Amino acid sequence: MISPELLRRYPFFTSLNDDQLKAIAMISEERIYPKGTVLIKENTPAAKLVLLLEGDVDLIFSGGGEGAVVNALVGSIAPGEVYGVSALIEPFTFISSAKATVQVKVVEVDGAALRALMDLDARLAFALMRNIAMAVLERLKYTQVELAAARA
Amino acid sequence: MISPELLRRYPFFTSLNDDQLKAIAMISEERIYPKGTVLIKENTPAAKLVLLLEGDVDLIFSGGGEGAVVNALVGSIAPGEVYGVSALIEPFTFISSAKATVQVKVVEVDGAALRALMDLDARLAFALMRNIAMAVLERLKYTQVELAAARA
Repeated sequence: MISPELLRRYPFFTSLNDDQLKAIAMISEERIYPKGTVLIKENTPAAKLVLLLEGDVDLIFSGGGEGAVVNALVGSIAPGEVYGVSALIEPFTFISSAKATVQVKVVEVDGAALRALMDLDARLAFALMRNIAMAVLERLKYTQVELAAARA
Repeated sequence: MISPELLRRYPFFTSLNDDQLKAIAMISEERIYPKGTVLIKENTPAAKLVLLLEGDVDLIFSGGGEGAVVNALVGSIAPGEVYGVSALIEPFTFISSAKATVQVKVVEVDGAALRALMDLDARLAFALMRNIAMAVLERLKYTQVELAAARA
């Protein structure tokens, strides 16, 4: 587990109350990964939601299906942002891979345990889902800009 | 207002109970727009969430900022799907425009009224936000595929 105070510093978690932060801190672990680590893999079960504390992460998409693998850069994650958002969105499968471009320090939240907490607390569920939707919309905006530029 | 039964037929609303469907039906209107109508405009306040009943809608993005206007196709909406998802996601501003490629029939839900309902009912708020997050993730997946193809 980690300190609830660590979570409280980040916008993604600031709307939560003390009990909610404590409950999430209990199912979270701090980890350090070396540069180049594939942190999550496209098309695998989304078992964790991850908050990036330090470093930089690239989101990479294979292009969909064999014979079409392009490994396109489709986004990047800065400290304070989350990745692995599919851990909270059905069908709970990662839609891209994430790779550490430098050494990273992260907080990994157990996805199944977090979903169980949300089942018990509708306010927590709403607060987290609202933040997840914001994070996904931000990525959609970024990807749209890149797509428009690629087609220009 | 519309009939709650109309909403119940669509996956986006099926997880809601009778009272929740009734409340949303009361703040919804059915509309028909001719082919070519710009249904929502990028960078304007997201005042409505819209369920497409009949027809076909293109999502178009200007490319971001003056001098870079490319009007790229960044998605499309099929009957049974929603657009205007930004009506439920801060900062409540549309991130793309939507255009009717044929005559369309839609249900428009008042965004401010819907957010007020969600403030009063955390379970409704969670259910809708979960469905919104799913819809946005689907669009992100589509946009990633297009981006990877454009860069291949």
